[in-house]
Amino acid sequence: MCELLGMSANVPTDITFSMAGFLRRGGATGPHRDGWGVAFYEAQGYREFKDPHPSIDSPVARLILDYPIKSHIVISHIRQANVGEVALSNTHPFARELWGRHWCYAHNGQLKDHSSLPLGFYQPVGNTDSEHAFCWLLDQIRAQLNAEHQSLDQLLDILHPACEVLRQKGVFNLLLSDGRYLFAYCTTKLAWITRRAPFGPAVLKDTELEVDFAACTTPRDVVTVLATEPLTCNEDWQVLQSGQMVVFSQGERVAERFSHAD
Amino acid sequence: MCELLGMSANVPTDITFSMAGFLRRGGATGPHRDGWGVAFYEAQGYREFKDPHPSIDSPVARLILDYPIKSHIVISHIRQANVGEVALSNTHPFARELWGRHWCYAHNGQLKDHSSLPLGFYQPVGNTDSEHAFCWLLDQIRAQLNAEHQSLDQLLDILHPACEVLRQKGVFNLLLSDGRYLFAYCTTKLAWITRRAPFGPAVLKDTELEVDFAACTTPRDVVTVLATEPLTCNEDWQVLQSGQMVVFSQGERVAERFSHAD
Repeated sequence: MCELLGMSANVPTDITFSMAGFLRRGGATGPHRDGWGVAFYEAQGYREFKDPHPSIDSPVARLILDYPIKSHIVISHIRQANVGEVALSNTHPFARELWGRHWCYAHNGQLKDHSSLPLGFYQPVGNTDSEHAFCWLLDQIRAQLNAEHQSLDQLLDILHPACEVLRQKGVFNLLLSDGRYLFAYCTTKLAWITRRAPFGPAVLKDTELEVDFAACTTPRDVVTVLATEPLTCNEDWQVLQSGQMVVFSQGERVAERFSHAD
Repeated sequence: MCELLGMSANVPTDITFSMAGFLRRGGATGPHRDGWGVAFYEAQGYREFKDPHPSIDSPVARLILDYPIKSHIVISHIRQANVGEVALSNTHPFARELWGRHWCYAHNGQLKDHSSLPLGFYQPVGNTDSEHAFCWLLDQIRAQLNAEHQSLDQLLDILHPACEVLRQKGVFNLLLSDGRYLFAYCTTKLAWITRRAPFGPAVLKDTELEVDFAACTTPRDVVTVLATEPLTCNEDWQVLQSGQMVVFSQGERVAERFSHAD
């Protein structure tokens, strides 16, 4: 299994505090030694940093912790390989362009029989179940919507049922973004917290680090952080339920879908 | 205008020596202060590092110089903006997936009337002439070939005439790769050198740095480096002619196309 980290914010925000705890799970406080990556959306731009080595030893990880990149959406992933060998081509997050937007995806879990999902426009580069499922998901969106017709409701009408299909194939915890929305879907483990004024101190679980957000924010800032397991020990994180999809934009929860079928 | 740097090698090779000179052109020995990026192909994998800031001051550039990533194909670009503002979304290289491969592209030059080039599958994220031309090029390939029929000759039959169309629109110096081949096309400025045994010393133009390649290579290594302007002052670089496309694989020149029409 792997671990996910995501952020949605209404002002460009750096995620070095959360990353400081998260990246320790890649070989120190967690066993996820098989590569890691992080993607940042900055205005219309997008950039990724990836390393197929454990984040705890990674020079790229040290850069990310020392160089606070201010972003409104972040997706990060540390990997413990199951399907697909340890290799850069199998390192999350994965990205593709659709409608002139970079779509970014990271997956925690394992899918059975993923190769039965038919592919069309998008093809995986590596050989993970995760990237195959990503290509399939984007194909569903591309085939059913277009650049002019893709409201959030329309996207959810495709994405949530598609995630439900994937849930039937195993464990599928997801972070996905098109640079406007951050979609989170849970089958087993995913938690989130929204921080807003009045800000207080936060204490990391994975390393001795505390930050007083009141000192580095303005009263209007709204920042949501998502993670496989809560990153702090003194705050109340919301835990997603199996089958639940929550969507964030500008730090706020803006939509939700939940299947009550099981 | 911008500057290009490329590498093709038959063994995973780091490009820190060439980068040390090249990145100084981003604000020190050259005026290209509007962002920079580098892409590495490592086995089946691909990763980029980008920064919309001058390479001379960039923490990401310092990482690349301190962390020798071994790769068989590299494409790098430092930007002096003409079309499109200084922004991450306009920072080269650009990448898209086609047939389960990452295609990477960087352009030096400026194109008139680029928006008249019709787009289909691929859409630009930023607003440069360069990314528009990249999407158009990939659309040409995608429309005329497929995953089973895409020999080097077939690719060149599409790519070279397409580059000739772009040459009619202005200045189009190109580096393009699909992870197997490195395509170089010239309209005004592009030079290359192939280094092989017996290796000797090389002295950078842009900074006081000399390397003795004999000390860090094996007799079987073959490494080609391409750049807008030669990077060393003690070696003979080959200069491409306007309309010439040269293709490298595993460090060797494997194909060439040249229009003698003008």
